[in-house]
Order: sequence, then C-alpha cells, then structure tokens
Amino acid sequence: MRIPKHVGIIPDGNRRWAQSHGMDKDKGYENGINPGLEAYRACRDIGVNEVTFYGFTTDNAKRPSYQTKAFIKSCVDAANALVKEGASLLVMGNTKSPLFPKELLEYTTRIEGKKDEIKANLLVNYGWHWDLNTLADAINVNKNNLQNHIQSSDISRIDLIIRWGGRRRLSGFLPVQSIYSDFYVIDEYWPDFEKRHMDDAFNWYNKQDVTLGG
Amino acid sequence: MRIPKHVGIIPDGNRRWAQSHGMDKDKGYENGINPGLEAYRACRDIGVNEVTFYGFTTDNAKRPSYQTKAFIKSCVDAANALVKEGASLLVMGNTKSPLFPKELLEYTTRIEGKKDEIKANLLVNYGWHWDLNTLADAINVNKNNLQNHIQSSDISRIDLIIRWGGRRRLSGFLPVQSIYSDFYVIDEYWPDFEKRHMDDAFNWYNKQDVTLGG
Repeated sequence: MRIPKHVGIIPDGNRRWAQSHGMDKDKGYENGINPGLEAYRACRDIGVNEVTFYGFTTDNAKRPSYQTKAFIKSCVDAANALVKEGASLLVMGNTKSPLFPKELLEYTTRIEGKKDEIKANLLVNYGWHWDLNTLADAINVNKNNLQNHIQSSDISRIDLIIRWGGRRRLSGFLPVQSIYSDFYVIDEYWPDFEKRHMDDAFNWYNKQDVTLGG
Repeated sequence: MRIPKHVGIIPDGNRRWAQSHGMDKDKGYENGINPGLEAYRACRDIGVNEVTFYGFTTDNAKRPSYQTKAFIKSCVDAANALVKEGASLLVMGNTKSPLFPKELLEYTTRIEGKKDEIKANLLVNYGWHWDLNTLADAINVNKNNLQNHIQSSDISRIDLIIRWGGRRRLSGFLPVQSIYSDFYVIDEYWPDFEKRHMDDAFNWYNKQDVTLGG
C-alpha cells in the first residue's frame, strides 16, 4: 500500500456538532481532543511520518470571545495530549498576538518525541497571510527553494489532506505545502470522528496517482 | 441563487481521454477547445464576472515535446476562440521562457471585451513558484494587501473551482486566489464536458455557506 508521508487534518464541524446536540457552539471543541489523538495514532500506526492539525487561525480569531477562549483551550489540551503520547510536537503560528497561548510557546521549536512516535504539527493562531509574508521580507532568495522562506518552513509538503465536516475547501491551510496535496472530504463532523474515516482516506489515497504536476 | 463571482476551471483528463479512445496522448487537447468555450458561455450566461482556465504550467512543460507542442497549440487556439467570442482576455504566465507562445504576448495585458461579455483569464506557462516569487522581491510591502504583490495580482480571489477528470487536488492552481475557494470535482474527462456539469457545480455552490475562514 502507498502510504502518505505527511497527512493534513482539517477538523471542521465542531460548532455544527454542538448545535446539532443542543449545546452552545463553544462546547464542540473539547469533544475534538480525543479524535485528534486517535487520528494521530492512526497515522503513526500505518506508517505516516508527519501529521499536521489545523488548530485555529487568525481568521477564526474574529469570532465571539466565548468561542475563541474555547478553541484556544482545546488547542492547549490537544498539544498536551500529543506530548503525553510522545509525539515530536511543533506548534506553528503567530506568537506575537495575545491570542497565542503562552503555554504553547515552549513547543514553537520542535520537541523530541518518544521512540516510534512521529512528528505532529499543530497550527495555532496560524494565518496564510502571516505565513507568506516572510517571503516578502526575504531578499536574495534562492528561487528554487521558495518553501525555505515561509514562516512554516519546518513543515514539509503535504501528501493527503483530510477534512471533516463536509466542506470542500482549504480555508487557508498551508497554501505552499498544499500545492500538490490530494484532498479527501468526510461529511461527518469532527467530534463524530471514527477510525474508519482514516482507513477510508488511506484507501482512497492509495488509488490516486501522484504526478506533482508533471 | 447565489452565483460565484469568479470561477476557476481545471480542465484535466485530456490525455486519459485520448488514450481511452485509442489515440495518442497529445490528441486530447484539441478536443478541449470547444469545452472551454462552452464553459465560458455557461459562466457568462449565469452571471459570473470572471473565469480562469488552467492552461498549462511550468510543471507540465517537463513532458515529452510532442505533448508540450500539442497543449501549447491548444492554448493559442483557446485564446483565439475566447477573443473571437468577445471575452476580455488576460493571458497570465512566465513569458520569459521559450515555451511561452509569442502569439499570446499581446494578451498579457487584458484586452477590452465586447459588451455583455466577461473577463477570461488563461494561465499559460504558469507556475505557482513563479507567481509567488515576486513577493520575495517586494520590499516594504503593505502587509494587508499581499495579493497585490504576486505576479498574478490582476486575477481576483476565486469563489468556485471546478476540476474535471476526477482528481481532488489543486496542482498548483493560483494558491493565493484559491485560499478560500470551494472545490467541485467532476469525474468525466475534460473533452467529455457537458453543460450540465456546470449546472451541477453551480447548484452545489449555491448550497455552500461562505465564511472566508471567519
């Protein structure tokens, strides 16, 4: 089986899930922590090297504060769960903003993971605009190596992106690393994550060819 | 009905179509000219303002020369067909390469279209790397207006991308303008284009919400 080296996870649908269960919108996020851990394990167990989770973005930060507080807390909890699992964690995002949780500053340089664990990246207060802006600041760039000059240059090219919640869009997720990614959409909301979603995505990916535009 | 302002068209599957009809791979492209004109008309007639066609890329240019010759010719033919139709055409791509057809140089500044016609953009010898590299050259950038500093800054944000040929990936298609695009995939190969594909895509788009990441 052809296994993606790097998987991107867009865990969408938390608010819709909460509403469909009669809860306030902010209650969805805490139900997304365990799915994240399960998705990480599914990647690790099948032989993926690196997995990137879309935590929250500078766009999301425009939402009401009871919601931003909830998703910031859930990102901290998710990071801690991944560290406890032994992942080699990197938190990536704009730290120069009050919305970036101080608890996660220590992970903005990748930590060493446990044996047999893999790289996990968590985008926290990430913005595609922020990501690309260093390109504009870089002068004398080696033009064959553009990816080295973006903020998220420690995150590699993504082979497979899996999005929950039915929407077929990238929503600003790592535009440079997503250039050639295959994109698989799962209709269920993220808190309704099941292991078989990952299996479905891996089986689908296995049937795709990879041309990198060639 | 909510109509996308700007539609992106990824006309994939020409080579697979040719092979499935017992032809050499290069014979697919010429069968993609009329579909392009029909897609343009479908956009214009429903009220879309701008449509962008993925012609060929610097990645594609690595293919055997009998194929590159065929898709370059088809891009020239497609441009001429769009001009004849009255579209306000802009050809966008790296002109500093022998692969860029000289016949299309006159369209690298947008031409004025006929009354009631719309903007059509054709990416010719386009590369996402080439597109973003001017960011690196720009100094003192207005950081709220990143899109103004890419090569393709005359092409606006895309609302809906429709890809033929079944693959679920962007393949380097305008990464900045595609940040928030909804992405609709049609399994048929591009030369098997039917008007109803456009109707299906428009109907699907009408049911999507638009959040721009908010």
